[in-house]
Amino acid sequence: MAHLLSSSHMGRTFPPTTDGFRPGSPALMALLPKSLHMHTRRAPHKGLIFRRSNAPTRRCTTVYAPPSQEARSGSLRTSSSKPKRVMVIGGDGYCGWATALHLSKKGYEVAIVDSLIRRLFDHQLGLSSLTPIASIHDRLRRWMSLTGKSIQLHIGDVCDFEFLAEAFRSFEPEAVVHFGEQRSAPYSMIDRSRAVFTQQNNVVGTLNVLFAIKEFAEECHLVKLGTMGEYGTPNIDIEEGYITITHNGRTDTLPYPKQASSFYHLSKVHDSNNIAFTCKAWGIRATDLNQGVVYGVRTEETAMHDELSNRLDYDGVFGTALNRFCVQAAVGHPLTVYGKGGQTRGYLDIRDTVQCVELAIANPAKPGEFRVFNQFTEQFSVNDLASLVKKAGAKMGLDVQAISVPNPRVEAEEHYYNAKHTKLIELGLQPHLLSDSLLDSLLNFAIRFRDRVDTAQIMPSVSWKKIGVKPQTVAA
Amino acid sequence: MAHLLSSSHMGRTFPPTTDGFRPGSPALMALLPKSLHMHTRRAPHKGLIFRRSNAPTRRCTTVYAPPSQEARSGSLRTSSSKPKRVMVIGGDGYCGWATALHLSKKGYEVAIVDSLIRRLFDHQLGLSSLTPIASIHDRLRRWMSLTGKSIQLHIGDVCDFEFLAEAFRSFEPEAVVHFGEQRSAPYSMIDRSRAVFTQQNNVVGTLNVLFAIKEFAEECHLVKLGTMGEYGTPNIDIEEGYITITHNGRTDTLPYPKQASSFYHLSKVHDSNNIAFTCKAWGIRATDLNQGVVYGVRTEETAMHDELSNRLDYDGVFGTALNRFCVQAAVGHPLTVYGKGGQTRGYLDIRDTVQCVELAIANPAKPGEFRVFNQFTEQFSVNDLASLVKKAGAKMGLDVQAISVPNPRVEAEEHYYNAKHTKLIELGLQPHLLSDSLLDSLLNFAIRFRDRVDTAQIMPSVSWKKIGVKPQTVAA
Repeated sequence: MAHLLSSSHMGRTFPPTTDGFRPGSPALMALLPKSLHMHTRRAPHKGLIFRRSNAPTRRCTTVYAPPSQEARSGSLRTSSSKPKRVMVIGGDGYCGWATALHLSKKGYEVAIVDSLIRRLFDHQLGLSSLTPIASIHDRLRRWMSLTGKSIQLHIGDVCDFEFLAEAFRSFEPEAVVHFGEQRSAPYSMIDRSRAVFTQQNNVVGTLNVLFAIKEFAEECHLVKLGTMGEYGTPNIDIEEGYITITHNGRTDTLPYPKQASSFYHLSKVHDSNNIAFTCKAWGIRATDLNQGVVYGVRTEETAMHDELSNRLDYDGVFGTALNRFCVQAAVGHPLTVYGKGGQTRGYLDIRDTVQCVELAIANPAKPGEFRVFNQFTEQFSVNDLASLVKKAGAKMGLDVQAISVPNPRVEAEEHYYNAKHTKLIELGLQPHLLSDSLLDSLLNFAIRFRDRVDTAQIMPSVSWKKIGVKPQTVAA
Repeated sequence: MAHLLSSSHMGRTFPPTTDGFRPGSPALMALLPKSLHMHTRRAPHKGLIFRRSNAPTRRCTTVYAPPSQEARSGSLRTSSSKPKRVMVIGGDGYCGWATALHLSKKGYEVAIVDSLIRRLFDHQLGLSSLTPIASIHDRLRRWMSLTGKSIQLHIGDVCDFEFLAEAFRSFEPEAVVHFGEQRSAPYSMIDRSRAVFTQQNNVVGTLNVLFAIKEFAEECHLVKLGTMGEYGTPNIDIEEGYITITHNGRTDTLPYPKQASSFYHLSKVHDSNNIAFTCKAWGIRATDLNQGVVYGVRTEETAMHDELSNRLDYDGVFGTALNRFCVQAAVGHPLTVYGKGGQTRGYLDIRDTVQCVELAIANPAKPGEFRVFNQFTEQFSVNDLASLVKKAGAKMGLDVQAISVPNPRVEAEEHYYNAKHTKLIELGLQPHLLSDSLLDSLLNFAIRFRDRVDTAQIMPSVSWKKIGVKPQTVAA
């Protein structure tokens, strides 16, 4: 272990002296001149422009910025007790991209770790974001040119521990935000291989992150994205992670019982249990953000330029209720309410996602603490959302209809739901509540890009009951 | 799906017309003449002697018996509503072997599915069973010669779905007992790669079993080995799988909160959550047997011949408390009490393991039911066990000492513990309680084989806190 720790400075990534390199996805890598494929590692503190491992999994690290004096001297590390160096795993995704920019804007030194596999899923399933999105390289160059702020980029898979270890040794994170998981319930229910992939990818990736923290950055605070779906829909109030139970005259405070209802949601339950154990056994400090359904597309930072634009998914696999309804309204497609529409969940604006993550980082868990926050601002039923979109559409002259479609999921369609969500408010969260103006803006976004909508992708295509062992492909 | 189902009779494995083939582990396979390596598949009902897939993972199926008229005509399938065809995954292991023989003796048609990897772990870690154990092939031939009863053998890994599917299609199980997991907590805490292996192997294997049931045998009852360790040591009574909670004036019955304390125990929690979901979503019928610590070595069946002998592990990785103490007493090694010794758990005799599994099979869960039984008969603290072994040793003239060694685990050493275990009693379990005679017999076993004890393997070698990312090997 000692030799690994002592080598961490060797692997430290510094900003390049020039920019313009565009190392990218494995496919792109294959197109690069061979001279760029070699493993280049310069002496520490001399600047590392571009690095690739010789391992079979192709990986690269790049930074789009000149080195700042502050970064070189390491003064960010010691100037304050507030963590400054934040690794955002999954920083090219919907929540991850918005968060990475927000943290960079707030003065954190940010490194994105991402395998870009979310973009591959779109290719494989024939889907695409409603909004055009730039490559991660163009995104980061644009951010640099607009703000002067650099964001490191480590392209690779956190299930590959050799890659992850190198990213930890070079960046030395003080906080890790882990969005880097397969995050769609329907994707996990397509077929056996996707179910297994989802659990294996999510569980092993998180185990690797926990081991990397223990081995290379034991003070590092893990901020892990969970989901409100871990709790299911119990007939009692949902608390934040724990519940005090009195039973046969004795009392204990125990993990809140979980009842997840897809292989994806289950993977998050597995993660929560694994993380809780390592907090207890190793003294890891962790915050599990049990997030509700996120809606919206613009944050202050992504709105700065089209090349910073976030993705917006409306399809039956990656699209979530409110975003999908707005796109449906914009193209004149009936809103697809699954079953009776009484399914009630917690929701939040993506501007609150980035705010919550920053609050968790700025107020870290204590060593050994496994802290759980329910990260949402309001509860709605699916029927509530359909009514709101219908009303907002009418104001804009859209004739919005809602239809009930057979529910592809296995879930209660009418149930009690009351989930606590006070801990982030106590830390200072100022919620953006769902409003007419937000709906107008979301609808306007959808109308602006409605020519990009593939209506064949709107209907649910994945059934919880019909999932089988035969590999599924999606028809063109 | 239809074509897969219709081909299931093609793949049905029938007993050989001759025996004597010894297909075995991949290493052994490599030694076989090439003529035996081809994929041979005869017409159905003509008898299949030996089959290997062309897939990279080597697999084979064999049966040590002439075909019985009963088996050929399929009369076992329809003669009664009681399941008759039972697949025992992990049937070469400690609990699995005893169970497979017990079920065969009771008249079930049994197929063992096992990758034999437990034997490989011993080689890799330099460990071995106190008792000499025969190869699985010799075991099955001996069983056949003594009882006239055949047990099918499918050698392969349940994480390889192609193999598992073929085993399901050929055997058509009505019940599956799933012991086929990495089952040692210390093993899972050796290093990162063993931690990841344990969770990946156990979770993916169980997911594959669930998919195989859904696809090929939807009426099949899954009897899954869980562990009492899933519950941890809460300060309230432990119920059997579920707890009714009244909270803020409302009441619900929810999964009992889990607090597992090793990557192994966590893997069983993940399994339980995955199985519960598939019962709800797909109508799988499942029984989760949360087993306590098993002790003993002889069952009625394994005692019939030395070649049927079960394994007995006394080492710091696979050995469990009472078995290890008896071996320590026999060789004059102090009993190694971890820490204060107040750790209290549920225990059961291996003769009750086999009885419990048979009771679960004979009384299957209903479609969609996720049934949880706590499978143990008595509670003891580690100090209780040490006292009992000391006393039994004294009667045999052994001077037994107990010492406290630093606890390699992270666990409470003094705590409340009261776990319910009535459901198996209600089904008819007749417990073998821990008695002087059992201890005498275990001690006698240990004395008989004490020359085989490697005392270097007795002390705990794995630390919950010191686990790291560097691959660990065990010194010779």
